[in-house]
Amino acid sequence: MAKYVYFFADGQTEGSGQMRNLLGGKGANLAEMTSIGLPVPAGFTLTTDVCTEFYKNNRHYPEGLTDQVKDALGKLEAQMGKKFGDPKQPLLVSVRSGARASMPGMMDTVLNLGLNDQTVQGIIDQSGDPRFAYDSYRRFIQMYANVVLEMEGEILEQLLEQMKEERGAKLDTDLTAGDLHQLVNLFKKRVQAELGQAFPEDPEEQLWGAIGAVFGSWMNPRAITYRKLNDIPAEWGTAVNVQAMVFGNMGDDCATGVAFTRDPSTGENYFYGEYLVNAQGEDVVAGIRTPQPINKAKYQQGDLPAMEDVMPECYGQLAKIRETLEKHYRDMQDIEFTIEKGKLYMLQTRGGKRTAHAAIRIAVEMVKEGLINEKEAILRVEPDQLDQLLHPSLDPKAKKQVIAKGLPASPGAASGKVVFNADEAEEQARLKQKVILVRIETSPEDIHGMHAAQGILTARGGMTSHAAVVARGMGKCCVAGCGALRIDYEKQQLTTAAGLVIKKGQVITLDGSAGEVIQGDVPKVQPEVSGDFATLMSWVDKFRRLKVRTNADTPKDSKVAREFGAEGIGLCRTEHMFFEGERIQAVREMILAANLDGRKKALAKILPMQKGDFIGIFREMKGLPVTIRLLDPPLHEFLPQTDDDIAELASSIGVGFSVLKEKVEELHEFNPMLGHRGCRLGITYPEVYDMQVQAIMEAACELVKNQGFQIVPEIMIPLVGHVNELAILRENAVQVSERVIEDYGVKVEYLIGTMIELPRAALTADEIAREAEFFSYGTNDLTQTTFGLSRDDAGRFLPDYVESGILPRDPFVAIDQSGVGQLMQIGCEKGRQARPEIKLGICGEHGGEPSSVIFCHKLGLDYVSCSPYRVPIARLAAAHAVLQEE
Amino acid sequence: MAKYVYFFADGQTEGSGQMRNLLGGKGANLAEMTSIGLPVPAGFTLTTDVCTEFYKNNRHYPEGLTDQVKDALGKLEAQMGKKFGDPKQPLLVSVRSGARASMPGMMDTVLNLGLNDQTVQGIIDQSGDPRFAYDSYRRFIQMYANVVLEMEGEILEQLLEQMKEERGAKLDTDLTAGDLHQLVNLFKKRVQAELGQAFPEDPEEQLWGAIGAVFGSWMNPRAITYRKLNDIPAEWGTAVNVQAMVFGNMGDDCATGVAFTRDPSTGENYFYGEYLVNAQGEDVVAGIRTPQPINKAKYQQGDLPAMEDVMPECYGQLAKIRETLEKHYRDMQDIEFTIEKGKLYMLQTRGGKRTAHAAIRIAVEMVKEGLINEKEAILRVEPDQLDQLLHPSLDPKAKKQVIAKGLPASPGAASGKVVFNADEAEEQARLKQKVILVRIETSPEDIHGMHAAQGILTARGGMTSHAAVVARGMGKCCVAGCGALRIDYEKQQLTTAAGLVIKKGQVITLDGSAGEVIQGDVPKVQPEVSGDFATLMSWVDKFRRLKVRTNADTPKDSKVAREFGAEGIGLCRTEHMFFEGERIQAVREMILAANLDGRKKALAKILPMQKGDFIGIFREMKGLPVTIRLLDPPLHEFLPQTDDDIAELASSIGVGFSVLKEKVEELHEFNPMLGHRGCRLGITYPEVYDMQVQAIMEAACELVKNQGFQIVPEIMIPLVGHVNELAILRENAVQVSERVIEDYGVKVEYLIGTMIELPRAALTADEIAREAEFFSYGTNDLTQTTFGLSRDDAGRFLPDYVESGILPRDPFVAIDQSGVGQLMQIGCEKGRQARPEIKLGICGEHGGEPSSVIFCHKLGLDYVSCSPYRVPIARLAAAHAVLQEE
Repeated sequence: MAKYVYFFADGQTEGSGQMRNLLGGKGANLAEMTSIGLPVPAGFTLTTDVCTEFYKNNRHYPEGLTDQVKDALGKLEAQMGKKFGDPKQPLLVSVRSGARASMPGMMDTVLNLGLNDQTVQGIIDQSGDPRFAYDSYRRFIQMYANVVLEMEGEILEQLLEQMKEERGAKLDTDLTAGDLHQLVNLFKKRVQAELGQAFPEDPEEQLWGAIGAVFGSWMNPRAITYRKLNDIPAEWGTAVNVQAMVFGNMGDDCATGVAFTRDPSTGENYFYGEYLVNAQGEDVVAGIRTPQPINKAKYQQGDLPAMEDVMPECYGQLAKIRETLEKHYRDMQDIEFTIEKGKLYMLQTRGGKRTAHAAIRIAVEMVKEGLINEKEAILRVEPDQLDQLLHPSLDPKAKKQVIAKGLPASPGAASGKVVFNADEAEEQARLKQKVILVRIETSPEDIHGMHAAQGILTARGGMTSHAAVVARGMGKCCVAGCGALRIDYEKQQLTTAAGLVIKKGQVITLDGSAGEVIQGDVPKVQPEVSGDFATLMSWVDKFRRLKVRTNADTPKDSKVAREFGAEGIGLCRTEHMFFEGERIQAVREMILAANLDGRKKALAKILPMQKGDFIGIFREMKGLPVTIRLLDPPLHEFLPQTDDDIAELASSIGVGFSVLKEKVEELHEFNPMLGHRGCRLGITYPEVYDMQVQAIMEAACELVKNQGFQIVPEIMIPLVGHVNELAILRENAVQVSERVIEDYGVKVEYLIGTMIELPRAALTADEIAREAEFFSYGTNDLTQTTFGLSRDDAGRFLPDYVESGILPRDPFVAIDQSGVGQLMQIGCEKGRQARPEIKLGICGEHGGEPSSVIFCHKLGLDYVSCSPYRVPIARLAAAHAVLQEE
Repeated sequence: MAKYVYFFADGQTEGSGQMRNLLGGKGANLAEMTSIGLPVPAGFTLTTDVCTEFYKNNRHYPEGLTDQVKDALGKLEAQMGKKFGDPKQPLLVSVRSGARASMPGMMDTVLNLGLNDQTVQGIIDQSGDPRFAYDSYRRFIQMYANVVLEMEGEILEQLLEQMKEERGAKLDTDLTAGDLHQLVNLFKKRVQAELGQAFPEDPEEQLWGAIGAVFGSWMNPRAITYRKLNDIPAEWGTAVNVQAMVFGNMGDDCATGVAFTRDPSTGENYFYGEYLVNAQGEDVVAGIRTPQPINKAKYQQGDLPAMEDVMPECYGQLAKIRETLEKHYRDMQDIEFTIEKGKLYMLQTRGGKRTAHAAIRIAVEMVKEGLINEKEAILRVEPDQLDQLLHPSLDPKAKKQVIAKGLPASPGAASGKVVFNADEAEEQARLKQKVILVRIETSPEDIHGMHAAQGILTARGGMTSHAAVVARGMGKCCVAGCGALRIDYEKQQLTTAAGLVIKKGQVITLDGSAGEVIQGDVPKVQPEVSGDFATLMSWVDKFRRLKVRTNADTPKDSKVAREFGAEGIGLCRTEHMFFEGERIQAVREMILAANLDGRKKALAKILPMQKGDFIGIFREMKGLPVTIRLLDPPLHEFLPQTDDDIAELASSIGVGFSVLKEKVEELHEFNPMLGHRGCRLGITYPEVYDMQVQAIMEAACELVKNQGFQIVPEIMIPLVGHVNELAILRENAVQVSERVIEDYGVKVEYLIGTMIELPRAALTADEIAREAEFFSYGTNDLTQTTFGLSRDDAGRFLPDYVESGILPRDPFVAIDQSGVGQLMQIGCEKGRQARPEIKLGICGEHGGEPSSVIFCHKLGLDYVSCSPYRVPIARLAAAHAVLQEE
């Protein structure tokens, strides 16, 4: 006969932590804790096989199950010295579901099962607290009626409310034991009336009812939908855990508490925890009573008596358990315990959540302690966590009034006076005022204002909107897509959903890591890159194979990135350079020129400035590889769009309003993302790319000639969809480069390559590789085109998609591996097939997102490139990728 | 020793028509004509191997070539009874390049080679026409200096112009023999001065010079670029053809002419042709002299003497050749001939171009004559040609003044008064006025005007712009993207590039097949679907495997399509229905509703109208499959965009201007193509799709119940990118459908499927197929996303891309097989892998384009769907696909 029930109790356990598939996550954990000798309340697990058989056999349990449950129940009673249904020493149990992975939509928990009019007396006798006993009883009826008997929860809740009203009670706790006793009777009557059957008094009937409810809930519509969306097979099934209840609130020899084996916020190696005498677990969490410290390790004035003084024996036992746990799990643990009548029970242990600081300190110290090795230490720190360490953040102790929530678009925190346009931001910054730039959305025209501001707040746009991308590139805090704000440029004010009006000049604070907008100024703490952080990162670099470059457009960004460990520039966008100072004038002159000569004249003005940019960047990068992308955005981005701005520009450059307006209209596009941009501009106006290539090569030649620098510029052509585009532009670039090299009389090598950012480029990568010495995946645009999804417009539905599980994650944050990733893989395979030595990298925003970095490692890319402030994250993720393979 | 030279002459030929790779296209043709006994002027071909060897050996000819050429030249002299360089009977030759495929950028032709100061005397003696002799000589020098000696063509041209000026001559023909003789001397002096060497007088030197120029031109930059863009390997090489010149203008026993073995415009089986006594080939074409008919088959009053009367012997020979040719080539031929001193020479024969009428008649009659079989007949008619037969067209004999050219967006011809807005078009139509709707571009708001107009003219937009797509769907003539027109709505006029102003109410004519805009009214001819056409189509249906459906949104379109042979509807767009009459009001009400209840109320008004639409269409299709696509476009397409229109709507529905304006702004999208549309709307507003599904199923149930109709509606969900979208919407649709079926108490089957129009859908087709019973490739959007190319914006560069060969064809016209097609293939393979019985079709515009239809056949799709007027084209292409495989 198959074994369907696994028993666990002090000293004897039939399952183990490895049997997750059979026992579910919760059941396996209980078995594991028991097997290492922790005093876990005894119980047993009905396996997932029962669930599978149940559905195979048209909702009938497999043969032998009843007997196996009976046996286990008997052992449980013996173990606890209590009896199911016994009026003196009643055994109460909890019944919980437990699939391999936790799953919403399923029945979760029934507590206090086994209570009836007889056993409630036993509880009263044991606890000496009738109010506690009847409160437990009425809660049990409510819970059972709702989740097992499937009665509307509202119905009994209303009876409770009615009772409170009659008694003039504000809180549940204002009801007396008598009230609750009466309520129990009312509840039972009502159940009878609603369902036409009595509430089950027989504990065994109760038990089978609850077990049946768990298995039944596996096929709930919500659970089915969840499995469908998350690709979980129905065959997995769920397990059911039945466990003895223990109570920390049966008298002063009872207690309950939570603890961490090390300090979760600093990582310091001492036993950290809190407890309450005569209390339930909820009481510690709910904050109704002030919890007491478990020990005096960090005793402070005013602290209540510590557990080590009040219950020295139990504390001694707990302290030993702490050691056992750290040795067994080799990681900091978060534990829950209960003491029932002087006996310690462990309810839970799991890896403890910790701050980034703590994670690093614990990992590094555990290596020193010989508990783990360097590789394990690396895997203990989540790459995303590092983000906390790389930006100033709000003082966690400070009070704050959050007035709106948006997307955490660029981490860090900043306070300043609200301004509503870029010019004003710049002006205020000149007057040494700190400002927050607030816009409905930003455009390239706002860049100078974004530079000047402390932080950026927008009402529209997603995680990869213009504001978000640029802010992250600048390492500047940004809250984007704060849709609930109404921004009124005319009145120069913003209004929150709650109707609060913030006028120009009032101070707000942004928390870019949490996406919060806060009224007034909130104190901040500066990031500390501690010695442990440096130690960890030195280990990281020993293991990773993927190189990490940065996306940087200026010498300043390049410097920051190098300090964070960047090994080159993977994306230097040249269009941002086009907006600065007087250049925008020359750029506009070029756009408005009637013919080639006019354009060339304007380009000649830009050439020396571009060359200067590249010299600065090459110098800062000291010979590391630098990939420069030629002009990418559509030309209309360089022209003003509103009539006022057009009029201003028209008069400033001495062109008629209507001429300029006509040009702006002529350049208008329905779908600029899919329009006349990238290499399409290079084909139409070869002179623009020629100028840029000339600037790049002159900068390189000049440094090589005069300063003895080694530089191999990587010239990158964007938005190639067909090999012929690249063939033509490559030929042009080679001609210009060779001419410059000849003029300077030096030897400079250079590479010419392309972005792979259109599906067609990935699909025909074999053809394209014939003309490209390197590929760089532009995963922002590749995601947009593969999904047919504009990141600027997706705000209307993408958040819903992610929340409801239609998409597992926002594809603009983490690479969509099955779609976009599939194209990347096709691109890699075909590219290498045509040119085995081709260099492969990624320069989309995803290059700094850990799961995407790991994916890139698996694809065998040579490098990832990300914004300067994410370089350490990418380095750590790259090491994770290697270590996860081992 | 390898054979490098292939000789051909009356009765002896070393090559054949099969040796295209070795002899090039031209050389193979000459060999073929000779081998079937045609009197071709003798000559010889230097093989492509010579070219390959030439470049392998650092531009040296292979050993033995000189001798082989000498031998061949000797045979040629013997054959022609003339001698190279002989002052009495000089042999003149032409030298032509000839690769496997004709290729721009290469040296084309040198004529009259062999002329010098001695041999020109021989020509004078033979022709008795010194003017002709010297004119030939000076032309030879010009041509040779330019293409062989690589002198600027301008230089000698200027000397000619100078001479004409001095002589007061208007035309070249006004110069005398003396003038031309003098010019020859001037030319030679100038060549000496420019190049520092004399013009070669030695015919052999001339010959080797020309041969070298042909081989040299194979590596011209232009030729290299062309090969690169068209994927032609450099190793193919070119051949060189040297052929004796013959002259039809050496006296009255000479002549030249062109003929077709059947009438190329009607297809009638008689010998059709024209000739001129004592003339060159150019004279017939140039129209300086009026050519004479070759026979009296269709003699008309005023016709000049026929060749059969004037040169009966030669005509007899020619008539026999006609028979030989038709028997040999089994197709109508287009021939060129020359008679030199009573001897007939065949210069060329090739498959003759013909009208669609002629193509069909010839094909059908040749089957009756036993010349070809049905399969061959089908292959003789180009599917695209049928377009001519399916629309009214301009009377080819009518005079017309073309004032602008745009894209031939939707075939047919129409005349009418110019109007500049849709309402006016409708009003004029009500007054029985024929109008042409002229817009900068059209939007869904213009549809009623497009319906009312005879034809549509737009200044912007490509072959798949809104105007073009809708017009083709309506079978209405349209010229789109006529960029040179300036359209001024305010002044209600348009201005052509030449400055011609056409005001509202003036009449213009559109030729949608040619893309021409013509001043005034031009007479038209109605299409004639002759009996031969029907015969051919019946053969077509015997062989094709691909089904052909139609894209139709109305009962009227459905009817037209069935008459053209459609076997179902592959795409019924429901959004067009949303614009009609009072519905647009209800649609707007729904969009503006503040909540679900409001939306449901508005949808309830639309439901009965939608149901009526579907009943009409189901009835018309008589049980054939009908695929209905649920709402696809973004909601803002249903709202007005300009302030004036917003104000008008606001007052008509009693909503504040600012409320409506705000909604319009809220719905604004940066990239609507990639925005909140398709199934994304269905996810956000499930009630909209629910209403549509209800309308479809009620219509089906009602017909099944009351009229005993068999209907299996195919419900199509658009723009799916992730299987989860489809899973949810499918579930909703099933629920609604089952409810309706239960309500009606009838048995109706239905299919639920999706468009594959995003790269991600194709890439994850295995997942999607789990939820889809059919796929329909939406190749319009799939092309846009795969290329990252907005069809509405591509007009700025796509035409250049096609013209310069960067893209072989416009991917919105013919499926881009290597990119978009690759995704389709991935989709088919993965889809079938997950669901072997899945139904596969295409409903993009490509479904009516022959090369795309053939591609779909190769992919193994079940059907293609196209606009009603292209159904016969798709049927024919589908048959071609099968026959090409055999």
